[in-house]
This record gives sequence, structure tokens and C-alpha cells, in this order.
Amino acid sequence: MNDTTRQKLALVAVDWGTSNLRLTLLDNSGEAIGERSSDRGMGSLEPSEFEDALLELIDEDLPQDKVTPVICCGMVGSRQGWQEASYLTVPCAPPDGTRATRVAVNDPRLSLWILPGVKQARPADVMRGEETQIAGYLAQNPEFDGVLCLPGTHTKWARISAGEIVSFQTFMTGELFALLSKNSVLRHTVNGANWDAQAFEEALSDAMSRPQGIASKLFGLRAENLVGDMSPTQGKARLSGYLIGLELAGARPYWLGMEIAMIGAPALSKLYQDGLAVQGVSASVHSVKDMTLSGLKAAYSVVKDSN
Amino acid sequence: MNDTTRQKLALVAVDWGTSNLRLTLLDNSGEAIGERSSDRGMGSLEPSEFEDALLELIDEDLPQDKVTPVICCGMVGSRQGWQEASYLTVPCAPPDGTRATRVAVNDPRLSLWILPGVKQARPADVMRGEETQIAGYLAQNPEFDGVLCLPGTHTKWARISAGEIVSFQTFMTGELFALLSKNSVLRHTVNGANWDAQAFEEALSDAMSRPQGIASKLFGLRAENLVGDMSPTQGKARLSGYLIGLELAGARPYWLGMEIAMIGAPALSKLYQDGLAVQGVSASVHSVKDMTLSGLKAAYSVVKDSN
Repeated sequence: MNDTTRQKLALVAVDWGTSNLRLTLLDNSGEAIGERSSDRGMGSLEPSEFEDALLELIDEDLPQDKVTPVICCGMVGSRQGWQEASYLTVPCAPPDGTRATRVAVNDPRLSLWILPGVKQARPADVMRGEETQIAGYLAQNPEFDGVLCLPGTHTKWARISAGEIVSFQTFMTGELFALLSKNSVLRHTVNGANWDAQAFEEALSDAMSRPQGIASKLFGLRAENLVGDMSPTQGKARLSGYLIGLELAGARPYWLGMEIAMIGAPALSKLYQDGLAVQGVSASVHSVKDMTLSGLKAAYSVVKDSN
Repeated sequence: MNDTTRQKLALVAVDWGTSNLRLTLLDNSGEAIGERSSDRGMGSLEPSEFEDALLELIDEDLPQDKVTPVICCGMVGSRQGWQEASYLTVPCAPPDGTRATRVAVNDPRLSLWILPGVKQARPADVMRGEETQIAGYLAQNPEFDGVLCLPGTHTKWARISAGEIVSFQTFMTGELFALLSKNSVLRHTVNGANWDAQAFEEALSDAMSRPQGIASKLFGLRAENLVGDMSPTQGKARLSGYLIGLELAGARPYWLGMEIAMIGAPALSKLYQDGLAVQGVSASVHSVKDMTLSGLKAAYSVVKDSN
């Protein structure tokens, strides 16, 4: 980054999760002027190491003659993170900058905030990071009344109304898929390189209509491989269909009769979209990166206004 | 073993699974005169290594002047085992010695058979080893008409009538519990040292009444630990209750209104027994080791008679 560009830096927007650190450099008009990332996620850092991990990515970008604001979301604000940013409790608007925790830093060029996550008391549930994606979506769609689905390792379904997160529910679907496909007796049965859309849809419908049989359907993949002629590609599609079908059955009170928008990685979001389509339900899909950046910018605009 | 005992050896009964090799030495009247075991299960052996793994345990026990019969059940007969003993297909009586595969061995002191497993075409399912436990139970209870439940890593439910396995269904419950408690985000949440019977029963009932929510209930354990006051002991009991409750919901067509006998390890069988008791259903519990030995003896008696 040359000196001219360095002088334009007005805000660093940081998405700091368990496994990765991703940030965007923004100018005074909110335009992105650079991106950085590393694998120094919260999970691999002691509290004293966060500032170094951040500076490793932006040290050369920081102007020397002024203080640059940095706003962060994600697991960086968890109890095991840099500094705890206590959860807000639903029903609530997704946290903006006025709810952020100011973190003391050593480098005089930095002024740093961490946004809190959101919790729910009953049924107990938590999010950290997704609330900022929701804030980003609401910044662009302030009148949205419906459900946001955020597919991932721990997929979230959030009921949104009047600018607030009314309630939400997390499903361990992505983590179950990873455990079963990598660490279980199914690992050689579901390692197909291709995709079988029909097998996915049949398994999805099967799980939705008899979710109580899931632990048996899973073993059935192994048995089909041993005594039937199921390919690993069909196996993978069926495993995915069973698990997403189970989730859609459980999340039915969220999506039934609602407007649905999804924020997630394209490939995974497509599976949820396909699954909902089998139920005659359509959903728009939006980028995690775009929504996170939109949410961080919206949150910072309030920090700025309140200072 | 002294020479006198060696002269009494009439049969070696072998339960050879994926992880372990366990055998019993029997005299001419079917009395156990010794036991041996090692961790040289099917999963760690090449076909050429099985005979050595067996001799390592019984070489000194074998009479020099005659041929000693050895009868085996379990994964030793799988495609990845010593030699494949092809599945029988339900409905069928559990395999006896006339259905066993004779395996050629190098040591002239041995004559060796492997019992086949049992498969089901639709829904696809397989068992290897459990069929011999079932044979053992039926040898002692020839008039049994009901359901056998065999709790384990892959729990089996088998409908038994007129001496035959009519149908069966396998649930991956035990493996799911192991994956979630050791390899998932829940691992620090469910590592309690004690037991909470009330938490188990509540979770079991919850999963039975809303099985479609299971992937959300699982994440709820993590959330309860973060924002609630759930202890790891309650977490473990609830994880177990959710998974066994899910299975009991799926296996309801098997156990509802039936006489139930269980063959399994005492601690795990107790959980299934407690879970069924919440549904007002009682079940007897029988030892895996006893039933396996009974089944191997019954199978061999037919080998002997037919020779």
C-alpha cells in the first residue's frame, strides 16, 4: 500500500472467528480499499496475542499521524477471546456500535471496539458474528419482516420483525455432517467426488417425514454400501439430505409461511435453497462477506456519531 | 495350562470383532476351562495375520495329537476379515454351524469355521456377531416371541418369531454419542464424571416427543453451558438422553406392545432399560459374553452332528 492509499484509510472492519481473521480496509466514504486475512483465529490465540495478530495484517497500512478505528465482530469477543463483549438478549436489535466493548490496545495508532453476540435464555442459544450479518442485511433491508437462515457449521434461523431479532434457533447440522463424513464408520461410504441431486432430495424428504429414524438412516448408508449398490457420491448426497432434512423438519416453525432470506456460502446455501424448494418455499441468498461488512460499517457509523 | 487340562480341550469358541479378539476354551461337556483375549481385532489384521493372532492366544493350549475345532463369529468373517462368510438374509434363523464357512489353516492342530452375519435387503441393514448372541438367547429361550435389543456402538433391534430373525434395524446411537462427546464443540460441555438420572429422563422424553429438533437440542447443550448453569454431568446425561430418546422414538414400531429382552453391557443396557421404563415398558437384560458363548456352542453342536 502506497502512502496516498495509506492516507485514505478511515476504518478497519474485522470479522474474527474461531479459525480465521478476515478484515477489510475502508476509506472515508465506506469504500473498500483493501482486504487482508490470516488463519490466526480466536481458537489459536491467547488474549495477549490478538493485537499482534491484527498488526501483522495492518501494520504497514496504518497512518502514523492519526488514530484509526477498528471494529470487530465474532468469537474475538467471547470469554476465550481478546476481551469478552457480553451478549445482548433477544428480543433486541442486532448490536450496533453503541453496544460495543472498547478494548485497550498498546499501539497508539489504533482505537478498537468489539461488538457483542446475542443470546436467548429459553431455549438457551447463542450467536457471535451472525448478529452482525443480520445487522448488515437489515441495514440494506430495514423493513424486512421474516426469517433469516444463516447456514454453516452451526446453522442459525432467526425471526426478524420491526428491526429486531425476535428469537433464534441453532442446529449443529454442519458439524454433524463433518463428524460423520470424516470420523465415523460412514467415512468410506460418503466420500463421493460428485453430486446426486435426486439422492439428496429423496433423503431430505425421507428425513422430513420420519425424523425419528435418523440414527437408523445413517447406519443404512453403511449397509447400502455393503449389501446394496450405493455409490459414495449417492452416499454423500444422502447424508447431506438426511441432515438438512432433519433440520428443516425441526426448523419448520421458523420457515413455514414466512419470507426467507439466507446468508451463507453459495454451495451450502444452495442445498438449503434446494431443500426448501422441495417444500415449495423460495429463499433469496446473500453473501456472508457482504453482509458482515455492511453490518460492521453500520455499527461503526453509530460509534462515530456518538463520539 | 497343564497337560491334564490340555487333554480336556474340545472346542475353542471365538468372538472376533473389529477391535478385540476374545475366546473361551471348552471341554467335551461344554464347560469353560479357560478364557483368552487380545486387542488383535479384525481392524488391525491382514488376512495372512489372523492365524498367528489366534495361535498367539491358544498355541500352548492345543493338544498335539488331535485336531481341535475352532468356531468364530463377528467381523472376522467380513470382506476385510480372515475370509468372507457371506451373509444370510432375513427372514432366517440365526446361522448355525451348517452355514459356517470352513477356513483353510496352516496349523494341523486346528479345524476352523466362521459363522456368517445376517443382512436385510430393504431397508438395507447388516449384523455380524449379534446374530450369534441371538442364537445363544434362542438356544436358552427357544419359544421366545418378541424383540431383542442389542445396545452398543451400533444398537440393533431384532424382531424374533418362530425361532427366526424376522427383521431388524440398526441405530448409530453409540457412535454418535462417542463422536459428539469426544470430537465436537460439545466435548467440554458433556464431560461430567457423575450421572444425573433426572436430566437423562427429561432429555429422553423431550427427544421422543420432538425428535426433529435433535440437531438443535444438541447445540442447546453448548448454549446452556455458556449462558445457563448446566453442569458437565447434566450435559452428559442430557446428551445420552437425547440420543437414546431419538432412537426409542425411531424404534417404537419394534418395542411397542412387545416382549423385550436386551443383550448388552450392563451400564449401557441400564440406560435403555431406564428409557423404556419411562415409556412404561420393561425389559430383561442378558450378558453379551454369555449369549455369544451359548450361540457359538449351539452352532458348533450342529457342525459336530453333521460331520
